[in-house]
Amino acid sequence: MPSEQDKQTHLSFAELSALLARIFERHGTSAEVAAILANNCASAQRDGSDSHGIFRIPGYVSTLASGWVDGKAVPQVTDAAPGFVTVDAKNGFAQPALAAARALLLEKARANGIALLAIHNSHHFAALWPDVEPFAREGLVALSFVNSMACVVPHGGKRALFGTNPIAFAAPREGHDPLVFDLATSAIANGDVQIAAREGRQLPPGYGVDRDGQPTCDPKAILDGGALLPFGGYKGSALSMMVELLAAALTGGNFSFDFDWSGHPGAQTPWTGQLLIVIDPSKGAGHNFAARTEALVRQMQDAGQPRQPADRRYRQRALAEREGIAIIDTELARLRALAEAST
Amino acid sequence: MPSEQDKQTHLSFAELSALLARIFERHGTSAEVAAILANNCASAQRDGSDSHGIFRIPGYVSTLASGWVDGKAVPQVTDAAPGFVTVDAKNGFAQPALAAARALLLEKARANGIALLAIHNSHHFAALWPDVEPFAREGLVALSFVNSMACVVPHGGKRALFGTNPIAFAAPREGHDPLVFDLATSAIANGDVQIAAREGRQLPPGYGVDRDGQPTCDPKAILDGGALLPFGGYKGSALSMMVELLAAALTGGNFSFDFDWSGHPGAQTPWTGQLLIVIDPSKGAGHNFAARTEALVRQMQDAGQPRQPADRRYRQRALAEREGIAIIDTELARLRALAEAST
Repeated sequence: MPSEQDKQTHLSFAELSALLARIFERHGTSAEVAAILANNCASAQRDGSDSHGIFRIPGYVSTLASGWVDGKAVPQVTDAAPGFVTVDAKNGFAQPALAAARALLLEKARANGIALLAIHNSHHFAALWPDVEPFAREGLVALSFVNSMACVVPHGGKRALFGTNPIAFAAPREGHDPLVFDLATSAIANGDVQIAAREGRQLPPGYGVDRDGQPTCDPKAILDGGALLPFGGYKGSALSMMVELLAAALTGGNFSFDFDWSGHPGAQTPWTGQLLIVIDPSKGAGHNFAARTEALVRQMQDAGQPRQPADRRYRQRALAEREGIAIIDTELARLRALAEAST
Repeated sequence: MPSEQDKQTHLSFAELSALLARIFERHGTSAEVAAILANNCASAQRDGSDSHGIFRIPGYVSTLASGWVDGKAVPQVTDAAPGFVTVDAKNGFAQPALAAARALLLEKARANGIALLAIHNSHHFAALWPDVEPFAREGLVALSFVNSMACVVPHGGKRALFGTNPIAFAAPREGHDPLVFDLATSAIANGDVQIAAREGRQLPPGYGVDRDGQPTCDPKAILDGGALLPFGGYKGSALSMMVELLAAALTGGNFSFDFDWSGHPGAQTPWTGQLLIVIDPSKGAGHNFAARTEALVRQMQDAGQPRQPADRRYRQRALAEREGIAIIDTELARLRALAEAST
C-alpha cells in the first residue's frame, strides 16, 4: 500500500505547464519567458527526465531571486551572415533566445543546406534534447553544444575547468519519433554523485577526483572540494574542450570557468553560451535520410542493442499522454505554494 | 649499438613524398591522386602517426591491386546549395575528393559563416587530422566525421556494426599551431589489439568482445571473430552512431556494414563517406576566437593537463623539419622496391 507520502496526482501537460508558468512569472520572469521555460520543464517531467523536470524549480526560483539572471530579458537576434545567426540573450535564459531565433535559423538551414545559431550571454539550466528534437521532427538534423560551470577536470589535470558540457543530436527516423541523444561529456552527473553520497555507495573508478586532484571512488570526497572527470578518458576530455570552444569561444559567451557568481548568493544557472548547427539532409546525395536512419536503427536492434537513444523518454511520454503526468502530492503542494508566493 | 636492422636514413619531406607518389602511380593511381595520397601519408610519417604513415603503404598497394578502389577516379563536385557541397568520389579515395571541393567549401564557409562538404562513394584509409588542420590554419573551425568498416559492437549489442568512426576537430590558436584532435570512437584501434596479441598482453576491461559477443580482455579472442567496443560505454556508442548518420546517411555513402568486398581479395579500404563542417568564427560575436582558444589552452595547462591534443605531432614535425624523417633502412628498401615494381 502506498504511503501518504507517495500519493500522486495526475496532471495534463497543459495543467502542469500552466502551473509552472505561474511560478516563473511570480518569481520575476516575463509572461513570454515563463511560457517557454514552463513548456521546457513540463516536457522533461512528462518524459521522465526527473533531474530536469520539476526538480529544477527551486533552483530556478533561487537564481531568479539572486538577481543573477534577468527573467525579463528580451533576446536580440542578429542576422550575421547567410548561414549564421547570433543572439545576445541579454543575461536571460537560453531557451527564449533559441525561440526568438528559431524561425530565421530554420529558413537559413533550408535555404543553404546548413546554418548555425550562436547564443551568448545566456543561462542554460535545462536538458538539451528539447532544443534539438523539434528540428528532427521537421526533417532536419540538429546538433547542439552548451558549456556550463567548472566542475570537470581536464584529462590528466588536477583542477576543475570544464562544465558537464553536453552534446545533443537529433535526426529524423522514418515512421518513428526522431533519434535523439543528449549526453554530458562528464563521466557522471553532479546529481548522481549526491545520490551516491546520500546512500553511502562508492562510485566506480574514473568518475571523480578529490580536493587534491587525486582519483577517488568516494562521492563525498568529490563533493567536498573535488571534481568530476570527463567520460572516456582523454577522448571525452577532448570533446568537452571542443564544447567550450563551440559554445563559448565561438559564440562570445563565457567559458565554464569565466564567471563569478559569488556576489549573487543563490545563483545556480551557468552564464555561458550555446551553439546549434542545423542541417537539411535533402540537399545532399542522401535524399532518403530518414529511411537510412531507420535502416541503421533496425541493424542496431538486430545486433542486439536492447534500446535506442530516447526510447525511454518516448515511452514515458506516451504513458503521460494516456494517463497524465504523475506528481507526488507533497511536491505538487510545494509547487502550488511557489505559484502563490513571490520573492 | 643499433643493430643492422635498426639503421635509419633521414629523408626530407619532399623526398619521402616523391617516393610514395612513385609507389602510388606504379600501382595504379593517376599522378594527381598519387601526389595527394603521398602528401597525406608522408605528413603522417613526419608527425609520428606511425599507424597512418608508411605502415599503410602495403595496404594501399593491396587494395589497388584488388580492383576494389579506383585510383584514377576523377571526383565529381556539385554545388548543391549556398552552404552545401557534395562530391561523388567515383569509388576513388576521399582525399582527392576533398581536394577537388576544398576551394568551393572555403568560399562558402567564408560567405555564409558555415558550410558543409558531403563526400560519398569514397575510400578513407588515412588519419583524419590532415583533413581538418589546414582549415584552422586559415582561421576557420573544422569538424570531420568518417565511418569505416564494421568492427565495433553497439553498446549492449553482440555483433559488430559500426566502424572505428573517428571524429576530428581543428581550431585556430593565436600564436601557436592549431588545436587539433582526431579520435576514434572505438575504445582501441585494431592495430593496438594486434600488437597486444603479438606481445601476449591482456587488454583492460571494456575494449572488446569475443565471437559470442561476450566481454573479453584477450586480444586473440577479439581478433578471432570478436569485435571492438565503443569508447566510454553508451556515450561513445551514441557518438559512433552519429558518425554513421553524418558520414554515410547524410552523404549518400555506405554504412560501415553496407559493403561487401569479398569479391575483391586484398581489398582493405572502407567504401563509405565523409562529412566536413567548416565554420568562420569571425561571423559571430566571438571575433577574437583564436585568442579565446589560446586562453582556454593556458587554463588547461594551469589546471595541470600535461599536454594538449596534437602537441606530440607538432614536436615530431619540428624534429623532422630539422633532421629529416627517419626511415628504417629495411623499410626504405621495401618502399623503393615497391616504387619499381608494378602489379
